[in-house]
Amino acid sequence: MIRALTFDTYGTVVDWRTSVLDELRALADRKVLRLDSVLFLDEWKAAYRPGMDDVNRGTSPWTTVDAIYRRRLVELLPKHGVSLATDEIDALTRVWWRLRPWPDALAGLCRLKRRYILSPLSNASFIGMVELARWAGLPWDCVITAENARCYKPRPEVYRTAITLLGLAPAEIMMVAAHNYDLAAARGEGMATAFVPRALEYGPGQTTDLAPAQAWDVVAADFEDLATRLGC
Amino acid sequence: MIRALTFDTYGTVVDWRTSVLDELRALADRKVLRLDSVLFLDEWKAAYRPGMDDVNRGTSPWTTVDAIYRRRLVELLPKHGVSLATDEIDALTRVWWRLRPWPDALAGLCRLKRRYILSPLSNASFIGMVELARWAGLPWDCVITAENARCYKPRPEVYRTAITLLGLAPAEIMMVAAHNYDLAAARGEGMATAFVPRALEYGPGQTTDLAPAQAWDVVAADFEDLATRLGC
Repeated sequence: MIRALTFDTYGTVVDWRTSVLDELRALADRKVLRLDSVLFLDEWKAAYRPGMDDVNRGTSPWTTVDAIYRRRLVELLPKHGVSLATDEIDALTRVWWRLRPWPDALAGLCRLKRRYILSPLSNASFIGMVELARWAGLPWDCVITAENARCYKPRPEVYRTAITLLGLAPAEIMMVAAHNYDLAAARGEGMATAFVPRALEYGPGQTTDLAPAQAWDVVAADFEDLATRLGC
Repeated sequence: MIRALTFDTYGTVVDWRTSVLDELRALADRKVLRLDSVLFLDEWKAAYRPGMDDVNRGTSPWTTVDAIYRRRLVELLPKHGVSLATDEIDALTRVWWRLRPWPDALAGLCRLKRRYILSPLSNASFIGMVELARWAGLPWDCVITAENARCYKPRPEVYRTAITLLGLAPAEIMMVAAHNYDLAAARGEGMATAFVPRALEYGPGQTTDLAPAQAWDVVAADFEDLATRLGC
């Protein structure tokens, strides 16, 4: 019996792409800059997986995604002709703490919370997930992130940390994600799995994660549908 | 500037004593038993600090307070002439997840949450703190417990774990507790401190923690007063 749901967050719960693009465009307007926001975001986001992989391979010590994004931002800004003060760089890095939930996410989470313990299980920093929840009103019962394990998904330690902290059998916890690789790793640890595709996470040209890659325990159209399928 | 408040929970946020006594008395009624509930609770609670000290000294591996309480319960029940099935023992152990907040706690926390990040920093198990929050409606932004550090307050690792996860300077975090020893340890790590006395935590005969033992940054009558003093 499922007792708790853990959620990938970037992409699965929140629409990071349009949220960050809006802030980049507002920055360009405010600074009267010509800025290719889509290209800028693509180049910024591209630092995310390699930065995490360095930690997972042990070639880098533990580094939060906030630090990975800030380091990349400091490289990118001059390349795009943008000059910002340190406090402006800090504020722009924190855009990853101000992301809009997908339209169905809050209503679905509130229904699911009545019956299940809800936690993010994200590669975000712990404080980043806390601030995002406060900003977006995400009704988590607790916060668990890669930072609790000091390595990144899909490393098994991340899922095992959640299983241990929640004090449940792996099969009593369902991982919810828009990414097949995340669910494959969770299944590898014995967790239940739910796929909620987010076909526009990477914009209109997205080619990955459009469909389930395995027979996941649940495939739901969105979080409201997930709540219905889980009896809420 | 304070950005987050961390709370001792047993005794500071919730009134464990009368909550557990009520359940023991209800159990005695249901089972038609003669049970000295106050003595039983005193003997049960007496296992708490020694069990944690064994972990802190390294003479015991990491053990949650749930496991410490369950082990003691299994010893105590026959001594008091009570025979329970395994599932009843499990349910009674979980009484520590069903504790009433002090009358001012919820209102104070809701006011404080508008301005500050709120987290427990308790010696409870992680799942115990999550379940207690769901049961009592505690509006935490996240949950941090001794289990995240795998040792117990007042070991410095527990406070340091909270400081690291919250990504703040120690002085930006205020420890709130009804126990002077807890605040002394938090101050030792550079945290701000608030004392909220709970003169009836141990019942009418309580002799400890009736007054602040040091000049804590804030001394408040209760959580509503704390909210007022912190500008909420």
